Amino acid sequence: ALRETRRDNIREDSYEKPHLSRPHSYNENGELYSSYLKRSTSLIHLVEALECARRSLKVCVYVITLPDCVVALVRAKNRGVHVRVMVEGQMPNDAALAKLRKNNIAVRVSHTSQLLHHKFALRDVPDQEASVPGNASATGRCGERWFSRFRVYLSGKAIPSQHVLAAQSAEPLLMTGSFNWTWSAVVNNFENVIISSDCDLIRHYSEEFERLWKNLEAS
Amino acid sequence: ALRETRRDNIREDSYEKPHLSRPHSYNENGELYSSYLKRSTSLIHLVEALECARRSLKVCVYVITLPDCVVALVRAKNRGVHVRVMVEGQMPNDAALAKLRKNNIAVRVSHTSQLLHHKFALRDVPDQEASVPGNASATGRCGERWFSRFRVYLSGKAIPSQHVLAAQSAEPLLMTGSFNWTWSAVVNNFENVIISSDCDLIRHYSEEFERLWKNLEAS
Ligand SMILES: [Zn+2]
Ligand SMILES: [Zn+2]
Repeated sequence: ALRETRRDNIREDSYEKPHLSRPHSYNENGELYSSYLKRSTSLIHLVEALECARRSLKVCVYVITLPDCVVALVRAKNRGVHVRVMVEGQMPNDAALAKLRKNNIAVRVSHTSQLLHHKFALRDVPDQEASVPGNASATGRCGERWFSRFRVYLSGKAIPSQHVLAAQSAEPLLMTGSFNWTWSAVVNNFENVIISSDCDLIRHYSEEFERLWKNLEAS
Repeated sequence: ALRETRRDNIREDSYEKPHLSRPHSYNENGELYSSYLKRSTSLIHLVEALECARRSLKVCVYVITLPDCVVALVRAKNRGVHVRVMVEGQMPNDAALAKLRKNNIAVRVSHTSQLLHHKFALRDVPDQEASVPGNASATGRCGERWFSRFRVYLSGKAIPSQHVLAAQSAEPLLMTGSFNWTWSAVVNNFENVIISSDCDLIRHYSEEFERLWKNLEAS
């Protein structure tokens, strides 16, 4: 984390020259590859999931400095997606926040004594799933059993697998893990990310987002 | 993370006086409460899951300084559980490692230029699930669909819910999230933890553990 902070001290104008410009990915044997890194990384799947947002994005991250992620959020906003971003005030998020605010993206910064240490994002979650805490039936899609479809990314390596979940799908997604939205996390760390369409998991994280977002209303 | 490092600068003798001593929890309306904190936290569920290990524990964490977690690992080792712990060398893990090594727990420290930023643990995963990468049928329990049972803990708050998964169960478990094994993460941060018995998820994380563990063999 110490190293991350130093290395990701990115100036605001970095966001004018993102590492990747769309189309940033290509498909090879059913697997996404980053045009920039020339390999399949967890980043490319994360960015792809953001790029495929149709309705909304809720982002709740400790640190966001990676231009690719910031640019993907701006691009989503520009095509009419409702984008909200919540970050920790003690981390070097200022340049990213300036870029997001300049593009009229709603941003809230946590300045409480509790560190906002989450690293999750929600894509295209219907509003009612967030609005009825504790009521599983509100989703209309969950029964007594939880059915999970997910992809998992470990140490930047996509798992070539039978997993059916695609970032390009139109379904609601949760992305959560150890992965801060930083360059170090992408290329230098051992990290994990779970991308899930499990509606119960999505509902709980969505409730957490809405609760924290409301708490920061006055700030 | 900066704050975490300072606050969790715990001396080795801290582990002789853990915050919690067993029995550290009590059950109220089907929910676990910490005897020490007098509330239900994600910590108490994590520690309970460790305390209920019967065969093995694989721990892969960026930071471990919390005496309750260290003591739970030592207690597991003392009752015959095969415990392995892997941590990041750049973080203040020395006191915890000394305590673990003193109790003959196998410890490996990552000193590569890549930060070991994971925060996951696996409980009672059968060996064959780890030994056949990419072969889902090796688990003998997973079909074409992934069935997930999990509990999720958000900002230290257990979700009172219909979730069937209990830390006290005898089944293999994955614990993963934003949660470093530190005092700050437990009482001061907004964090999330997923505890899952999904065999596919468990298999991937177990493979990651074994891969990293082997990589650190020479170190
Ligand atoms: Zn639930
Ligand atoms: Zn899998």
